Amino acid sequence: MANKVITISREFGTGARTIGQKLAEELGFVYYDRAIIQLAAEKSGLSPDFIEKNEEKASNNFLFNIATSAYIASGINLQYTVPVNDKAFIAQSDVIREIAAKDNCVIVGRCANYVLSDHPDLLRVFVRANKDERIERCINEYGYDPKTVEAELNKIDKGRSSYYKYYTGSSWKDMDNYDICINSSKGGIDLSVKTLADLAKEVFGL
Amino acid sequence: MANKVITISREFGTGARTIGQKLAEELGFVYYDRAIIQLAAEKSGLSPDFIEKNEEKASNNFLFNIATSAYIASGINLQYTVPVNDKAFIAQSDVIREIAAKDNCVIVGRCANYVLSDHPDLLRVFVRANKDERIERCINEYGYDPKTVEAELNKIDKGRSSYYKYYTGSSWKDMDNYDICINSSKGGIDLSVKTLADLAKEVFGL
Repeated sequence: MANKVITISREFGTGARTIGQKLAEELGFVYYDRAIIQLAAEKSGLSPDFIEKNEEKASNNFLFNIATSAYIASGINLQYTVPVNDKAFIAQSDVIREIAAKDNCVIVGRCANYVLSDHPDLLRVFVRANKDERIERCINEYGYDPKTVEAELNKIDKGRSSYYKYYTGSSWKDMDNYDICINSSKGGIDLSVKTLADLAKEVFGL
Repeated sequence: MANKVITISREFGTGARTIGQKLAEELGFVYYDRAIIQLAAEKSGLSPDFIEKNEEKASNNFLFNIATSAYIASGINLQYTVPVNDKAFIAQSDVIREIAAKDNCVIVGRCANYVLSDHPDLLRVFVRANKDERIERCINEYGYDPKTVEAELNKIDKGRSSYYKYYTGSSWKDMDNYDICINSSKGGIDLSVKTLADLAKEVFGL
């Protein structure tokens, strides 16, 4: 029987990491977030810092395409010339598949809903929240400068959206890519955890 | 204290009407769906049939804009020349506001999430489902012809999307317009009802 896997995609500042941790605790699942970066770094030889930042940088499709065309034109075999950001994605995807094969788990970010789309026992979650609450959380909990927080938040979301589009060909916030999308501002973190835990217990027959 | 209102927007064939009815029953709320059409017909003098079909027809923005420009150019006051489909929308919106002022209720369709966006005690739901399950439901429960069902279903969804865009300026399936979006194929109708009822009880303090 396949392991039970919950993937959580999330806007920045929604409290999704806390939701994921509490959800994993409630269900007795293993929680994976930054550990994926470390495992992917070991696998690929890339630095953990590069892999972490890769998800929140807007990928430059245009330059990538130019480079790809140049490779093709020069007759070089693409499998030996994978750009370094794509190597990071491939390493993380391999790690995500290995994790799903090993544990009942909650995985945050990294297009895991897409990477595991064929996994038999999967619940795909998206967490969004009201902008003012996200800004407040970024200032009070993550220490962002109130003067620049909104621009930073928008930049990170834009990077996640672009990263998702680049690797999946689909839209990050397209509800069709998820089984449940929740607004964590509607009732708060603990209610979001309860809603997701109750749903997961029913879906997975726990 | 304001009444507690749940709006349900939905793709065609997702079982959202059944979900709405069972949810209203579970919470002791009044369920409104087609009754809105009758009330709007009485208010506007338009036929119930016209009002019902209006929601699922793709509005012809281009012709509407042409017509509007012609009115403006001719100096006619627009408030006396509102197109008939807009009259239907305005009458339904008035009915929706009256209902929300009168009862704790569940309202299905008709851009109620948008019409009531300033309502203080509101839970905005979107129900989607997997395409194959929606097709099966349309054939088995609604009697659609298997040969044409997918085209019919796509046409109705396209009409709803266009109607929403025309009247709200926003996208029908943009998750930011809802507090929770659920895939009713993930666990079925009764689990969807349970998830929404449990959430509503917490959000509304019932």
